[in-house]
Amino acid sequence: MIKFEVIKKHSHSSARLGTLTTPRGKIHTPCFMPVGTQATVKALTPENLEYIGAQIILGNTYHLYLRPGHELIHSLGGLHKFMNWPYPILTDSGGYQVFSMNKLTKVTEEGVNFKSHIDGSSHFISPEKAIEIQTALGSDIIMAFDEPTPHPSDLATTLKSLELTTRWAKRCKDALKSKNQSLFGIIQGGMHQKLRKESSEQIIELDFPGYAIGGLSVGEEKHLMNDITEFTASLLPELKPRYLMGVGTPNDLLICSSLGVDMFDCVMPTRNARNGCLFTRDGKLNIRNSQYQSDPEPIDPNCNCYTCKNFSRAYLRHLIMAGEILAMHLLTLHNSYFYQNWMKNIRLAIKEDIPFSFSWQETAN
Amino acid sequence: MIKFEVIKKHSHSSARLGTLTTPRGKIHTPCFMPVGTQATVKALTPENLEYIGAQIILGNTYHLYLRPGHELIHSLGGLHKFMNWPYPILTDSGGYQVFSMNKLTKVTEEGVNFKSHIDGSSHFISPEKAIEIQTALGSDIIMAFDEPTPHPSDLATTLKSLELTTRWAKRCKDALKSKNQSLFGIIQGGMHQKLRKESSEQIIELDFPGYAIGGLSVGEEKHLMNDITEFTASLLPELKPRYLMGVGTPNDLLICSSLGVDMFDCVMPTRNARNGCLFTRDGKLNIRNSQYQSDPEPIDPNCNCYTCKNFSRAYLRHLIMAGEILAMHLLTLHNSYFYQNWMKNIRLAIKEDIPFSFSWQETAN
Repeated sequence: MIKFEVIKKHSHSSARLGTLTTPRGKIHTPCFMPVGTQATVKALTPENLEYIGAQIILGNTYHLYLRPGHELIHSLGGLHKFMNWPYPILTDSGGYQVFSMNKLTKVTEEGVNFKSHIDGSSHFISPEKAIEIQTALGSDIIMAFDEPTPHPSDLATTLKSLELTTRWAKRCKDALKSKNQSLFGIIQGGMHQKLRKESSEQIIELDFPGYAIGGLSVGEEKHLMNDITEFTASLLPELKPRYLMGVGTPNDLLICSSLGVDMFDCVMPTRNARNGCLFTRDGKLNIRNSQYQSDPEPIDPNCNCYTCKNFSRAYLRHLIMAGEILAMHLLTLHNSYFYQNWMKNIRLAIKEDIPFSFSWQETAN
Repeated sequence: MIKFEVIKKHSHSSARLGTLTTPRGKIHTPCFMPVGTQATVKALTPENLEYIGAQIILGNTYHLYLRPGHELIHSLGGLHKFMNWPYPILTDSGGYQVFSMNKLTKVTEEGVNFKSHIDGSSHFISPEKAIEIQTALGSDIIMAFDEPTPHPSDLATTLKSLELTTRWAKRCKDALKSKNQSLFGIIQGGMHQKLRKESSEQIIELDFPGYAIGGLSVGEEKHLMNDITEFTASLLPELKPRYLMGVGTPNDLLICSSLGVDMFDCVMPTRNARNGCLFTRDGKLNIRNSQYQSDPEPIDPNCNCYTCKNFSRAYLRHLIMAGEILAMHLLTLHNSYFYQNWMKNIRLAIKEDIPFSFSWQETAN
């Protein structure tokens, strides 16, 4: 089981410095979890993940269930051993991907019928099945199987969905037998504060060791996402970890840390890297732009990552324009390092109780 | 300039242990040079190349000339700095790719007109241009611009081609001004011993610091390749390095080392890796085969590379089947490590003057 301690509270915001102790090590929060969809953070080795300072990574239940299969992973000693990552892993429940990757899902009280995006085969995931899969994977933190509410949704639809999510959360809790895994409940409720409150009360009533805020970063405006995050975070128990799912940009991490969120995950640093979109302290930089063709500078002169210490923008641009695999590796390494370093700076500011003076330009370069 | 010393001769074969001293470090021979076509050995960092024990790598003049351009690389400090590889680099002359990647080349006494495989633009490379490009790149060992003889070719065609290659070799030598670069001549002559002798005499007459055997591994049978290699190597000066271009399998390296060859290059370890075809002491292993689906063993239980020390066949198969970039990286690392280790074993056998007892099964697993 996990243990969460709030070490220090930020006097300038609702941010908190925490320690999340898991069977596989301590995590300093607020933290960012690189996404390892198919038992690999794309283009990085476990050695690279240690190098960038990742403390915990995320695995996708939906993808691992379909390929290579949770039973195969279990027979080989679990997900940690399979991918050679001995540190903490959080798996999502599969709920989000079941809906986002399939047009033809069929939801009943029992669970969800869907077709594989790989081969079209039919599958069924219920709350009990989601727990069975995550138990087979052996991840340290597991997520309740929820129904993500589409955005936008009216009050009635959102209410119906969050109530189903609550009943499924209860079934997940009842289904969990493993003592080494900690199950987080997920708050839904769309963009309606009233329903976020409703969902929070129902899920908190079930008493989980941690709580996630789901259903955000789904296309809503930033101020709305921040408002709902602030409102929902304020309803959650102070001494339990709070995880904002699927968020976000460096600024999102900064703002939502200041609203009291402890854990984040997002494909942005890795996916953007593969498209040549890089994060620097001065904003985004698209390395494919012709202006970098003969630029001898590193991506970010203030960055200490292997990529920035050793390669010019001109070289990295050449690699990505030539379709070289090394581009994917070096750019992912940089963006992932940037995100971990960003979180270190957030933690340092909370520790030293100084205001979050740094911010990140959404559009620059 | 380079300095080559034969340290020890194998009493069981014509193999020799040598030291090739370049401005950027010593190379123990016989050696294998990983191919870094577009200023990167595909899917490996320079750090990885050091890790596997690469002493020298090869760059492709044709590719670098077209993209990103030799002038750009020169303006950024040369190829070593551009790709962050401070150790020796050999560049080919571009001759081979000009012919193999273009159907519509036009050869005159002056040089070769061809169209870019990237954008169809027209280009012209002469012996002087090939030296200009390689000088701009700043590689330590550079190759004369030759006309690779198509296979099969009759005596008359082969003779005409090797004579052109000799005239071009002379022009390359005359064009070279850089004192830090060592120009190797290339022996052609197809599969005709008489013409190999003719070419060797003409090229040796020009007095290069090293000699390459070109025009092999072009589809001929193995015994023919070995015969021509043996015959040609025997004609070359004993105290100069001998480089067999574009060869080959582990067995080819073993056999041709025993015939007195000192340097090799081939895309086989890297290209095969990306297709899932792996080298082990027990032969080839195609990691995509379903028999490895749940196999907990490493690729090669006797291998000490990062991939074999940390990942199962089942995991690597999953990665490649799922199209993950990490598969390309981990498999390339293994094959490249295997090749370097193979050469170490060859050097050790020569050093200890024991017969080459190991050999490699072309088809196994």
